[in-house]
Amino acid sequence: MPQPLVHVVDTTNSPQAMLRPVDLTAVHLNDTLWAARREKLREVTLLSQWQQCSTTGRLFNFERAAGRKEGEFQGYFFNDSDVYKWVEAAAWWLATEPSEKLADKVNSTIEMIAAAQETDGYLNTYFTGDLAGERWTKLFSHHELYCAGHLIQAAVAHKRATGQDELLTVARRFADLICATFGNGPGQRQGTDGHPEIEIALVEFYRLTGEKKYLDQAEYFLEARGHGLLAGSDYCQDEVEVRKRTKLGGHAVRAIYLAAGAADLCLEKADPEMVGALDAMWTHMTTRQMYITGGVGSRHEGEAFGADYELPNDSAYCETCAAIASVMWNHRMLLLTGGTRYADLMEHALYNGVLPGIAVDGEHYFYVNPLTNDGSHRREPWFACACCPPNIARILATINSYMYAVKGNAIWVNLYGENEANITLADGRTINLTQHTRYPWDGDVEIVVGTSGTFGITLRMPEWCGRPVKVTLDGKSFTKVALHGSPGQYLTIDHDWVWEAGDKIRLSFPMDVRLVEAHPRVVDNVGKVALLRGPIVYCLEGVDNPNTNLDELVLSGIPSARMVPNLLGGVIVLQGSALKVPQASGGDDWLYRARPAPARQEVPITAIPYFAWANREPAPMRVWVRR
Amino acid sequence: MPQPLVHVVDTTNSPQAMLRPVDLTAVHLNDTLWAARREKLREVTLLSQWQQCSTTGRLFNFERAAGRKEGEFQGYFFNDSDVYKWVEAAAWWLATEPSEKLADKVNSTIEMIAAAQETDGYLNTYFTGDLAGERWTKLFSHHELYCAGHLIQAAVAHKRATGQDELLTVARRFADLICATFGNGPGQRQGTDGHPEIEIALVEFYRLTGEKKYLDQAEYFLEARGHGLLAGSDYCQDEVEVRKRTKLGGHAVRAIYLAAGAADLCLEKADPEMVGALDAMWTHMTTRQMYITGGVGSRHEGEAFGADYELPNDSAYCETCAAIASVMWNHRMLLLTGGTRYADLMEHALYNGVLPGIAVDGEHYFYVNPLTNDGSHRREPWFACACCPPNIARILATINSYMYAVKGNAIWVNLYGENEANITLADGRTINLTQHTRYPWDGDVEIVVGTSGTFGITLRMPEWCGRPVKVTLDGKSFTKVALHGSPGQYLTIDHDWVWEAGDKIRLSFPMDVRLVEAHPRVVDNVGKVALLRGPIVYCLEGVDNPNTNLDELVLSGIPSARMVPNLLGGVIVLQGSALKVPQASGGDDWLYRARPAPARQEVPITAIPYFAWANREPAPMRVWVRR
Repeated sequence: MPQPLVHVVDTTNSPQAMLRPVDLTAVHLNDTLWAARREKLREVTLLSQWQQCSTTGRLFNFERAAGRKEGEFQGYFFNDSDVYKWVEAAAWWLATEPSEKLADKVNSTIEMIAAAQETDGYLNTYFTGDLAGERWTKLFSHHELYCAGHLIQAAVAHKRATGQDELLTVARRFADLICATFGNGPGQRQGTDGHPEIEIALVEFYRLTGEKKYLDQAEYFLEARGHGLLAGSDYCQDEVEVRKRTKLGGHAVRAIYLAAGAADLCLEKADPEMVGALDAMWTHMTTRQMYITGGVGSRHEGEAFGADYELPNDSAYCETCAAIASVMWNHRMLLLTGGTRYADLMEHALYNGVLPGIAVDGEHYFYVNPLTNDGSHRREPWFACACCPPNIARILATINSYMYAVKGNAIWVNLYGENEANITLADGRTINLTQHTRYPWDGDVEIVVGTSGTFGITLRMPEWCGRPVKVTLDGKSFTKVALHGSPGQYLTIDHDWVWEAGDKIRLSFPMDVRLVEAHPRVVDNVGKVALLRGPIVYCLEGVDNPNTNLDELVLSGIPSARMVPNLLGGVIVLQGSALKVPQASGGDDWLYRARPAPARQEVPITAIPYFAWANREPAPMRVWVRR
Repeated sequence: MPQPLVHVVDTTNSPQAMLRPVDLTAVHLNDTLWAARREKLREVTLLSQWQQCSTTGRLFNFERAAGRKEGEFQGYFFNDSDVYKWVEAAAWWLATEPSEKLADKVNSTIEMIAAAQETDGYLNTYFTGDLAGERWTKLFSHHELYCAGHLIQAAVAHKRATGQDELLTVARRFADLICATFGNGPGQRQGTDGHPEIEIALVEFYRLTGEKKYLDQAEYFLEARGHGLLAGSDYCQDEVEVRKRTKLGGHAVRAIYLAAGAADLCLEKADPEMVGALDAMWTHMTTRQMYITGGVGSRHEGEAFGADYELPNDSAYCETCAAIASVMWNHRMLLLTGGTRYADLMEHALYNGVLPGIAVDGEHYFYVNPLTNDGSHRREPWFACACCPPNIARILATINSYMYAVKGNAIWVNLYGENEANITLADGRTINLTQHTRYPWDGDVEIVVGTSGTFGITLRMPEWCGRPVKVTLDGKSFTKVALHGSPGQYLTIDHDWVWEAGDKIRLSFPMDVRLVEAHPRVVDNVGKVALLRGPIVYCLEGVDNPNTNLDELVLSGIPSARMVPNLLGGVIVLQGSALKVPQASGGDDWLYRARPAPARQEVPITAIPYFAWANREPAPMRVWVRR
């Protein structure tokens, strides 16, 4: 029996998809960064998260709903979703590597979930017992369809990873109930969820099952927005139809999950108006609403987008889930359009928006990601509202599927990193490729073609390169060919190129340290720069810059890169010098004062990747540095 | 018959005054700045303002009210106040120097005013005829008592300057009606004006007439605030009692006129609670709400104070009248307390907040005073709401009275500038003093004592000096005495010092060019400095820095001072150099970008006094420069 296809986003039959993702199982990562985090995922993260679900009553809630245990419902009304997201992450993991310990936990959890399902297919451990009568009455606030969506996504993952039907059956019964309940037909309810997610899930369920009613239902929930079903709330994206939007607004995770759902629908059904709206939202987000880390949602109040250019560093909210949502949305936009900018942002948000969310130890998490901190902000082992930890697990479990895509008989290389892949083309051939590289720490990438044949290879030239990228083809049957790729485009090597096993593509991405400035309307960053190198955003942390007020540092010159193998899992640090210039400090007793003569004391500085801060003793941190 | 005393603020009999102002006639200015503006005042400003009052229907309104002319009321309902302020300014001028042309216009205008007075003493050319029934019904918005206040101030000035009773009689009849109308007595109305001014006026009227009922009435109007008579409006300072305020708020001119009125009352009647409140407001204003020019009221909307540290340069409102109000308030606080800080701010606001309000030509005015402009903001010959032009005329007509004050038998030197003064001490002796100096362009001041005798001299050591000030006494009967004055204090030379005519005091105020930074919470000014020298704020104007984007300049080093005698009436300019570093420009299409390599092109720059900008061809202007 053939191994089931394990796409995270399955566009195999999506008529509008420009690109199709590769199987999750097709790529084996061997880099020092993602592979290390995935190792922790297996050994620490997934097991400790299951333990948290257990000790915080999240599993108890299912047993209670099944009538096996007695007591009060535990925690938030949306806590089921954390269990579903954990099952999804663990299932995706099992698709790529067996683990008896994990498989046992997945199976026992699925058994609990199934036992909690009601006879009509309904499944939500909060709206049971005394509260059963309140089903579907609190769509604005109570995440009922949101939880259902995560159940469906977990079922999709479990089916694809294992071929087993247990969770699929549960999800199908609930999905059928939802399809029967909501819609414009006679006797049906009008409604859509305050927190989008069901849209993505139903499209995926359609892709798995081939049953169009799930796709239609996703479309119903998406198009229901903007018609007052959620009281016209900005916060829930109900103030306007999705296709009329020109920018994201309200709760950041909600807004981007909704955009990702809309992109999913566009992959299935031509909708140029919606694609145009999504592109406008994307442009607005990236030119008005996004932190340099790729983080979004600047306001703590409402976990929401702020006004244009409202991007405070200290009070940045930047929920980890919002960066994850951005990766999901950008991945779908890339599949839909082939636009490099989406792949660029997907990579950028992965390294700088998602990865900071988990500690090097694999079991502490950031929910909120400030860009300036006094050292008091630390990663936590879990949260009462624990959306972020299992969301990070989902991303880490599936990161390999983001690396490549396929268009017909061409392989698209989206992300770089040491890996070996066996990629199936449209015509069924499987092509072996190996990336040898120390990326993201080094810009040299050697791609070895392991399979002879005629096919295309299309390579992302990241926008951040800033200048043409040297690409060399070094083959057995031809003399060296030197090309130049333009940053911000995909470089296509002709589809009729005849490769011989052992041919090599050598890429050389310029890895200069870049000083980046913000738009002058971002008031926090006036007169400051951020340090970037390759796809990585850097920060200054007090641990590496002791006895220094980071606000006093004025960068002089451009720091240089140095690999420190035993630091934070092995990272490139940036080392340079800065002048210590006392900054206009706060205080209440002055408004104007003679500028103190700048003390010209030069001090060495060291910057580390932003994702790696707060893994040592508490210390102040700054992304933006005076210049 | 002795010349009447011509105090602008008359504290001769004020029991709480620490200082008494000198007669307006006691000081003759011979400097190159104020004396030149006063020359224009006589030759151009006062005559052209009268002409404007005539052509815009302001005088017509009085003739209409007198029944001499027919037609509609012209312009704003508060236009009477401009005529009164003009009469006041012209009268003060006539106190110091005869002018037949001006005297004729003053007399004919007073005749018109008197003719417009109604039989019961009421006088407001708007609330006549059809609108007579609306008297006192629109105190919130219609400036009825505000206009009355300016009538009273004009009458005080005319009486003091000329000894004549014509306008005094008119004002007294109206003031008596007001006293009879408003108060807590039986049959009286409760009320106070939406725009303070009557308070100052009635205190002055009390000082002139000695009749305590006017003082009591001023106190009634002041204490009436905060009790809902103005609907609790923030804008009109009615949300809280004046003595409970901790900061100024609402409409800036209203707020400071009210504070000045409160200070006037404190000069007459011990009120430590009110003095404490005023000092708190002053501290808040100077540490939270004030532009570096001394301008206040940052918002166009409501001509109002903004939030703390809300001090945008481009959209600064900074009404000229608000700076004038600040000078008035600070003068009263100085008289009340002898605090150097009030004299410092009085001087600073005169040079940098008030003086920009009038062009070098003496007949064009700024109402709004931005600190950044593209060159489109130009002085106008008049305004529909013309409060500022005659207010500037009042200040210029009386500037000499601010120079000195007296405490017992000591002379206080508040302001510096070439002048000759004959100052009457408490014991009746008149002391001749001459200041020889090119101040504010040069920090050397020689004060020649022209009268022998025993008396004190107390000298302001401006806070901006920043380091001890060298003071040398060089007398005929003693060897040189060298003292050092501390910046921000008055230096007292003992009251029992025996002076001989010809003794000299030599002061040397350090006139280094100062780079001043703003509190970091003033977001517009982060990374920038303002250039100051002595009491003068400088700016860059495109005229002197052609072919240069002022926003690209990054100051390098400290500019040096050079007198240019034929420029803008003769000013010290600051000349130095700056690097041209392209600034993060605006635009809609980016949020982050690689910082362009700084072009190290050094260019010469020239800064001129801020008060003198926009007197040549239109060009961009910046007070704050990158550093």
